[in-house]
Amino acid sequence: MARFYSKVSHKTGMVPGTLLHIGRRLLDQARISVFNYKEVDYSEKQDVPVESCRPGQDSSTVNWINVDGLHDAEIIGKLGESFNIHPLILEDILNTSQRPKYEDFDSYIFMVFKMLTYEEEKKEISSEQVSLILGQNFVITFQERMGDVFNGIRERIRLGTGRIRRMGADYLAYTLIDAVLDNYFVILEKIGERVEEIEEKLVTYPSPATLQEIHKLKQEMIYLRKSVWPLRELISGLERGESPLIMKSTSIFIRDIYDHTVQVIDTVETFRDMISGMLDIYLSSVSNRMNEIMKVLTIFAAIFIPLTFFAGVYGMNFHVLPELNWKWAYPAWWVLVLGIAGFMIYHFKKKKWM
Amino acid sequence: MARFYSKVSHKTGMVPGTLLHIGRRLLDQARISVFNYKEVDYSEKQDVPVESCRPGQDSSTVNWINVDGLHDAEIIGKLGESFNIHPLILEDILNTSQRPKYEDFDSYIFMVFKMLTYEEEKKEISSEQVSLILGQNFVITFQERMGDVFNGIRERIRLGTGRIRRMGADYLAYTLIDAVLDNYFVILEKIGERVEEIEEKLVTYPSPATLQEIHKLKQEMIYLRKSVWPLRELISGLERGESPLIMKSTSIFIRDIYDHTVQVIDTVETFRDMISGMLDIYLSSVSNRMNEIMKVLTIFAAIFIPLTFFAGVYGMNFHVLPELNWKWAYPAWWVLVLGIAGFMIYHFKKKKWM
Amino acid sequence: MARFYSKVSHKTGMVPGTLLHIGRRLLDQARISVFNYKEVDYSEKQDVPVESCRPGQDSSTVNWINVDGLHDAEIIGKLGESFNIHPLILEDILNTSQRPKYEDFDSYIFMVFKMLTYEEEKKEISSEQVSLILGQNFVITFQERMGDVFNGIRERIRLGTGRIRRMGADYLAYTLIDAVLDNYFVILEKIGERVEEIEEKLVTYPSPATLQEIHKLKQEMIYLRKSVWPLRELISGLERGESPLIMKSTSIFIRDIYDHTVQVIDTVETFRDMISGMLDIYLSSVSNRMNEIMKVLTIFAAIFIPLTFFAGVYGMNFHVLPELNWKWAYPAWWVLVLGIAGFMIYHFKKKKWM
Amino acid sequence: MARFYSKVSHKTGMVPGTLLHIGRRLLDQARISVFNYKEVDYSEKQDVPVESCRPGQDSSTVNWINVDGLHDAEIIGKLGESFNIHPLILEDILNTSQRPKYEDFDSYIFMVFKMLTYEEEKKEISSEQVSLILGQNFVITFQERMGDVFNGIRERIRLGTGRIRRMGADYLAYTLIDAVLDNYFVILEKIGERVEEIEEKLVTYPSPATLQEIHKLKQEMIYLRKSVWPLRELISGLERGESPLIMKSTSIFIRDIYDHTVQVIDTVETFRDMISGMLDIYLSSVSNRMNEIMKVLTIFAAIFIPLTFFAGVYGMNFHVLPELNWKWAYPAWWVLVLGIAGFMIYHFKKKKWM
Amino acid sequence: MARFYSKVSHKTGMVPGTLLHIGRRLLDQARISVFNYKEVDYSEKQDVPVESCRPGQDSSTVNWINVDGLHDAEIIGKLGESFNIHPLILEDILNTSQRPKYEDFDSYIFMVFKMLTYEEEKKEISSEQVSLILGQNFVITFQERMGDVFNGIRERIRLGTGRIRRMGADYLAYTLIDAVLDNYFVILEKIGERVEEIEEKLVTYPSPATLQEIHKLKQEMIYLRKSVWPLRELISGLERGESPLIMKSTSIFIRDIYDHTVQVIDTVETFRDMISGMLDIYLSSVSNRMNEIMKVLTIFAAIFIPLTFFAGVYGMNFHVLPELNWKWAYPAWWVLVLGIAGFMIYHFKKKKWM
Repeated sequence: MARFYSKVSHKTGMVPGTLLHIGRRLLDQARISVFNYKEVDYSEKQDVPVESCRPGQDSSTVNWINVDGLHDAEIIGKLGESFNIHPLILEDILNTSQRPKYEDFDSYIFMVFKMLTYEEEKKEISSEQVSLILGQNFVITFQERMGDVFNGIRERIRLGTGRIRRMGADYLAYTLIDAVLDNYFVILEKIGERVEEIEEKLVTYPSPATLQEIHKLKQEMIYLRKSVWPLRELISGLERGESPLIMKSTSIFIRDIYDHTVQVIDTVETFRDMISGMLDIYLSSVSNRMNEIMKVLTIFAAIFIPLTFFAGVYGMNFHVLPELNWKWAYPAWWVLVLGIAGFMIYHFKKKKWM
Repeated sequence: MARFYSKVSHKTGMVPGTLLHIGRRLLDQARISVFNYKEVDYSEKQDVPVESCRPGQDSSTVNWINVDGLHDAEIIGKLGESFNIHPLILEDILNTSQRPKYEDFDSYIFMVFKMLTYEEEKKEISSEQVSLILGQNFVITFQERMGDVFNGIRERIRLGTGRIRRMGADYLAYTLIDAVLDNYFVILEKIGERVEEIEEKLVTYPSPATLQEIHKLKQEMIYLRKSVWPLRELISGLERGESPLIMKSTSIFIRDIYDHTVQVIDTVETFRDMISGMLDIYLSSVSNRMNEIMKVLTIFAAIFIPLTFFAGVYGMNFHVLPELNWKWAYPAWWVLVLGIAGFMIYHFKKKKWM
Repeated sequence: MARFYSKVSHKTGMVPGTLLHIGRRLLDQARISVFNYKEVDYSEKQDVPVESCRPGQDSSTVNWINVDGLHDAEIIGKLGESFNIHPLILEDILNTSQRPKYEDFDSYIFMVFKMLTYEEEKKEISSEQVSLILGQNFVITFQERMGDVFNGIRERIRLGTGRIRRMGADYLAYTLIDAVLDNYFVILEKIGERVEEIEEKLVTYPSPATLQEIHKLKQEMIYLRKSVWPLRELISGLERGESPLIMKSTSIFIRDIYDHTVQVIDTVETFRDMISGMLDIYLSSVSNRMNEIMKVLTIFAAIFIPLTFFAGVYGMNFHVLPELNWKWAYPAWWVLVLGIAGFMIYHFKKKKWM
Repeated sequence: MARFYSKVSHKTGMVPGTLLHIGRRLLDQARISVFNYKEVDYSEKQDVPVESCRPGQDSSTVNWINVDGLHDAEIIGKLGESFNIHPLILEDILNTSQRPKYEDFDSYIFMVFKMLTYEEEKKEISSEQVSLILGQNFVITFQERMGDVFNGIRERIRLGTGRIRRMGADYLAYTLIDAVLDNYFVILEKIGERVEEIEEKLVTYPSPATLQEIHKLKQEMIYLRKSVWPLRELISGLERGESPLIMKSTSIFIRDIYDHTVQVIDTVETFRDMISGMLDIYLSSVSNRMNEIMKVLTIFAAIFIPLTFFAGVYGMNFHVLPELNWKWAYPAWWVLVLGIAGFMIYHFKKKKWM
Repeated sequence: MARFYSKVSHKTGMVPGTLLHIGRRLLDQARISVFNYKEVDYSEKQDVPVESCRPGQDSSTVNWINVDGLHDAEIIGKLGESFNIHPLILEDILNTSQRPKYEDFDSYIFMVFKMLTYEEEKKEISSEQVSLILGQNFVITFQERMGDVFNGIRERIRLGTGRIRRMGADYLAYTLIDAVLDNYFVILEKIGERVEEIEEKLVTYPSPATLQEIHKLKQEMIYLRKSVWPLRELISGLERGESPLIMKSTSIFIRDIYDHTVQVIDTVETFRDMISGMLDIYLSSVSNRMNEIMKVLTIFAAIFIPLTFFAGVYGMNFHVLPELNWKWAYPAWWVLVLGIAGFMIYHFKKKKWM
C-alpha cells in the first residue's frame, strides 16, 4: 500500500530546497563511477570522489557520471554545486516518491522516472527512482541501488558497438531511457501471463481466491498506470522541447521511445479493460453458482416435501381411516408417491433444471 | 492472449536499431516482387534479388516493391540500405508487434498498420503486420506472408483499369491502404452477425455459455479497438501532413479513407455499447431465473409444510386426542388441508407468483 | 441489427470511385424534379431527364434539383458529370451507409445526413440517407424515396411565403436541413413518451418484458446517437467554414440549426442517463422481489418446521413416554405449539418482515 | 417527464422565424414595465404599450424594459421590430424550451437562461425561461410570469443603493443574471438537505421507497445539469467576448458570476457522485438483508430438520425396534436431540451467523 | 454534509459586493499581525490596528500582514480600502465557501484556497479557508482562526534561515502556499492508512460496517477532490500568468508546487480507483457469503428431507405393510438411510460444496 503514496509528513514544515533523502536506504554507501568517451577513446573510473567529477571543457568527450545510492545528501549536494544544479532539483533527486517529470533549464535537462521490477514471490511490481541530468557534454544518473540495467550500455561503450561512441551526450541519455523502458515490456509480459492464468481459472473453477487475485492484479495496473502516464508527458516534452541540447539526429530516436511508451500505455489500458471484464465474469459465475445451488435445493424440496406429506397422511391415527384397511393400499401408495416424484422430475427436466 | 502484448523480453538490452525479426515465421523464404508502371506501359518481375530493386531516376514511372516474409533480416537490411531508410524504421518493420503509426521523413513516408482476418473456427480476429514506405516514385510494402488482398490492385495495374496507371506513387499507396481498410468492414460484418446471434440466444435461453461468448466478443472488440484507433491517427497524420510526396489530387482520396476509418471506429464503439448492454441483460436474466427458482421452492414449501404439520398432529399418540374418534374426522381433515392449500394457491396467484 | 453496420463486403476489392448503389431499393425508378426561382418568378418541372438539369448562368436564379431513388447509378453518374462533381462524392451519395459528413470543395459543398422516422409498430427508428450539394446558384438533393418532408418548402417556394424567394441557394440548403432536423424533435418526443411509459411500468409491476423494452430503447438511443453526433460536426463545419458559398446573412440561420442540433444531442444524452437509471431501478426491483419471496419462504419454514417437530415428538412410539398419558396433554400441546407460532410471528413483525 | 424534452412537433414544417409561443401559458395578459434611470434620476412606468417602449438617444440613461408573459407573439413581434431584433431571436424568446445560450450581434447581445424553482410538495425542480437583450443603453427582459426575483433590483434602482445607478446597462444585465444565479444556490441547498435526509434513511431502514427517492433525486440532478452546464458556456462567452457593450469595469463582475456558475456545477457534480454512491449503498444493503433472511432460514432448517428426522425414526412401526422398549429411551432421545441442536447453535455462533 | 454545499440563501437578493461574513465564527476577535523584513533586518508586531497596516514605499522591505478571524467585516473592509482591493475580492475573502481560485489584477494577485485538517475522532476532513493577496512589496493573508501552519515560516523569517529574507514578496507567497500544500500530504497519508485498514478488514471479515467505512472514505475523497482540482488550476494560472509581480527566480519554485499539486491529485485519483475496487470486493464477498449460507441450507435439506421421508414411510399405519414384520427391517432401514446420506455427502464433496 505504501507504494501508492509518499510518506512525507516528517518533512512538513522544512525550508524548501532542504536536501533530505526520502525513501528506503538500499545501499550502504553511495558510489560514484565515471565514464569519459569519444569516438576513438574511452576511460572508466570507479568510486570517484565527488570533487573530481567535474568534466573538462572538451566538448567532444561525453562524460557519464553515475551515482548509486541516494541516502548521502551531502554527496548529492556537492555534486549539484559543482555542476551548478538548482537546489530544488537536488531535492527532487533525493525524494524517491517523485512523480516522473521533465524540466528544461537552459543549460541542462532534468528527468526523473521509475525503474520497475516484478517481484515474483510477492506478485507485485516494485519501483526504484532513476534521475537523469543531461548537460552539454555530460549525463549524470542517480539510482537508488546498484543495478545491472545499465551494464549493457557500459559494455557497448567499452567495446564501441553500435553508434554510441560516435554520438553525443543526448544519445547516451536516450540509450539510458531506452534501457529502462525495455524493462517495462518485461513487466507487461509477466502481467500478461498472470492475466492468462486467471482467465483459465475463471473458466475452470472460479473461487474467492480468484477474486483476490483479480483484485491484486487490478491494483498492480493502478500502480503501473501511475508510473507510465507521466512518462509519456515526460518523453513528449523531450520530443517537443526545442532544447539545443538535443541534436536533430537524436530526435528520431526519441520519437522511437515515445512510440514505445504509447505502446506500453496501450497495453496497460488493454489489460485494465480485460481485468474489468474478468471481474464481471467472476461476479456472474458466482450468481450462476448460486442458481445451481438453489436448483438442487428446490428439486429436493419439491420432490420430497409432498412425499413426506403423503407418508404423514397414512401415519395419522384416526379411528376411521378407510384406506388403511385396503389390501393393496401400501403398493398403491408407492405407485402414487413414485408417480408424483416422476412427474416432478419430468417437469424439472423439461425446465432444464436437471 | 499473446495477441494483446508483444513478447520482446528476448530483445531487452540489445543495441537500438539492431535488425531482428520479432514474431511468428509465416513463410519459408522471403520473396520480393517488383512492378514498374506508367500510364502507357508496365512491367512485372517475381523473385527479384534485393540488389536489383533500386528504381531508376525516371520520375514518371511508379515502382512498387513488395516483400513477402519478414524473418530474413538481412534482406530487409540490404533493401533499407539501397533506399536509404533509417535503421530504426527497418527495426519497426521487422518487429511485428508494432502499434500502427505514421512517420514523415523528408524523402519518404513510413506507415505501419494491421491487416485483420477473422478466423471462423476460433471465432477470433488475427492480425498480420503490413508496412509501407512511400517515396518520390516508389512504394515498398512488407507483408508477413503472401496474401491475396493486393491481387485486385495488381490486376488493375496490369489491365490499366481505373485511374491507377495515370496517377503517381501516392495514389498507389492510397489504393493499398484502401484495400486493407476494406477488409475491416468484412470483419465488422462478421462481428455484427455474432452480436445478432448472441442477442437472439439472450432472448431465448441465456446460459453460462452465452456469457462466455459475450466475454469472448468483448475481448475481440478490445483487440479491434487497439488496431483501429491508432489507424485514425495515422491517416489523419497523412491527411494533415504537408508532405510534398502527397499530391493535391490524391488528398481527397485520403480524406475518403479517413472517413472510412472514422466509420469503422464508430461501428466498433457502437458494438462495444451493445455488448455491454448484452452483459446487463445476461446478468438480469440470471437474477430473473433465480427469482423463478425461488418462487417454485417457496410455493412448494409454503403449501406442503403446513399440510405436513397437520398430518403430524393426528399422527400423535396422546391417549386423549378427541378428534381421532370422530366419525367424519378423516374427511374433515382433508377438507381442512385442501382448504389451506387452495388458499395458498389463490394467494400466490394473486401475487402473480404462479 | 443490420442498421448498425453497413454490409459492404460485396464491394471489397473494387476500384475506388466505382459507382455502385449500396442499400435497399426503395423506389422503382429514379425521378428528378427541378425548381427554378428568383424573387419575382418561379418554374417547376417533374421527371426531368438528367441531360437537361444543368442550370443556366443566371446567378440570380436558384435551381433546386431533387433526385428521388438512388439505385440507378447511371443517372447519378451523368448528373455528377454535368455538375462536375468528384467521383468519390458520387460514390458517397450512392452508398446509403454513409456517416453524416461535410466536405467543402471550392466550387461546391457536399453534405450527407440521415432522415429519421419512428416506426410505431416496430418501435424502432429507421433512417434514410439524404445528400445535398450546394453550389453557386444550385442545390441538388438526393433521397432514397419520395418523401413528404420537403413538401412544405416546395409550397413556400410556390407561394413565396417567408424569405425563401428573396434569398440564395445557401438559404435553400439551410431550409432543407432545418426541415430534416425538425423531424428529429418528433422522434425525441416519441422516445420521451416511451421513456415515460416504461418509468410507469417500473413503478407498478416491473417484469422481464420491461427489461426487454429498456434494452430496446437503449439500442434506439445508440442508433440515434450514431446519427446525431456527426451531424453536429457537420453543421459546425458549415458554420465555421469560410466558404464563399455561404452568405453572411445566412450564417445566423446556420447558427440556429447548430443550436437545434446541440439541443437534440443534449436530449439524447439526457435520455441515455435516464435509461441507465431505469436499468438500475429494474435490477434493484428484481432484488427486492427476491427479498420478498425469501421472506415468505423463511416465515413459513421458521413457523411450521418447529411445529412439525413437536408433532413428531408425540408421534413417537416409545413405550415409556409419560406425556402421552397426561389428561390435558393434547390441549397443552396446542398451547405450546401456538405459543411458539405466535412468538415467531411477533418476532417477524418486529423485524418488519411481515 | 415533459420537462426533459420540448414538444415541438406542432411546429414542424413551419417557416423558420415564425413567431409562435411554445410552452405553457402562465399569465393572462402580457405586461410591459419600463424603468429609466441615471445616477441622479429615475422613472418607472407600468403597463406600457409596446409602441412607446423605444428609448431616447440619451446614452447616459439606462432603460430597462421588462416583459411578463410570452404567449402574445404580436407584442413580442412589435417590440422586436422597434428594437431591430432579428426574427430568429424573437422565435427563441417565444420558444420556452430553449437551451441556455448566448449570441453576440454587433448592436446587441442576446442571452436566454432558466430560472429554477424547487417545488416542495412535488419535490421537483421546475423552470421558467428568462431571456435578456442587452443593447447600448437598454436591457430588455422577458419572463414567463410575473416573478419577484427582480424585485430586489427594482428596489435598489428606486433607492439608489449600491453602484447600480452609477453604472451602465451592462451592469444592470449582470445584476439580473446574478439574481437568477443566487436562486440556484437556494435549489442546491434544498437538494443538499434531501441528500442528507436520504443518507440518514439509508443508515437506519432502507426500503424500496428510499430507492424511489434516490431515483427521483437523480433525475432532478439530470435536469439541473441540463440547465447549468450551458449556463457556463453562456457566461464564459460573455466574459471572453470582446463585445464593446461590456465595459471593462463590469468585466470583473462577470468573472464573479462565472465563478459562481462553476461553483454551482461543482456542487451538482458532487451531488451526482454522492447519489451514485447512495445507490451502491442501497443495493448492497438489499443484498445484506437477503443474507440476513437466508441465515434465519438456514438456521431454522439446519436445526429442526435433523430433529424432525429423529422424531420420525422412533415414530416408525417396525415390530422389532429395540430402542422403543428401553426404559430411559425417551429422556435419552431428548438428550440426543438437544445435543444436536446445541451443537448446531454453537457452530452457527462460531460462524457469526447468530 | 453541509461541507459539500454552501448555505448562502440568507444572502440571496443582497447588493453584490456587500461585505458579509459567511461561515462559522471560529475566533472571538479578529487579530492582525505584521511582519516587515529585508535581508539584514526584520520587525514583528502583534494586534496591529487596521489603520496602521499600510506599508511604506520602501520596495526592498517585504511586508506580511496576517489577519486571523473573518467575522469582523468592518476590519476587512478598512484593510481593503487602505490597500485598494476590489470590493468583490473582499466579499470572496469573507465568504468561506469559496472555490479555490486565482485572480490577477494588475497591481495585485488574489488567491483563495483551503487548508485541510483530518479530524481523527470523526474520521473526517475539515477545511478552513485561507486567502492571500500578493502585491508589489506586501502579502496579506486571511485565516479563519489562529493556526500554527505558518509558524515555521515566521521562525524562518526571525532567524533568517533559508533564502526567505533574501527574496521578495512573491517568494513569501510561494512559501505560504507550500506550507499549506505540505499539509495535504499529511491528509493523504492518513487516508492511505485508512484504505490499508479497510483492505485488511475486507480480507478477514467484511461486515456492513465495512461498507459504511468504504462509503465514508469515498465521500472524503469526493470532498478532497473538490478542494484539490481547482487548486491545480490556481497554481497553473500562477505559473502561466505573466504577472510582473512574480520574479523569474521564483517561478521555478512555483513549478515545484505545481508538481506537488499534480502529485496530490494523482494520489487522490489512485485512492478513488482503489476505493471503487474495494466496493466491488465487498459486494462480491457478500455474494460469496450468500453462496456459503445457501450451500449449508441445501446440504442439510438434501440429506435430511429424504431421510425424513423414509422415516415417514414406516410410520404409516397400513394394516398390510409387509416390511414392518421383517426381522432385520430396522437395521436394514438404517443401512438404507445411512447409505443415502453417505451418497449425498460424497456427491457434495465431489462438487466441492463441503
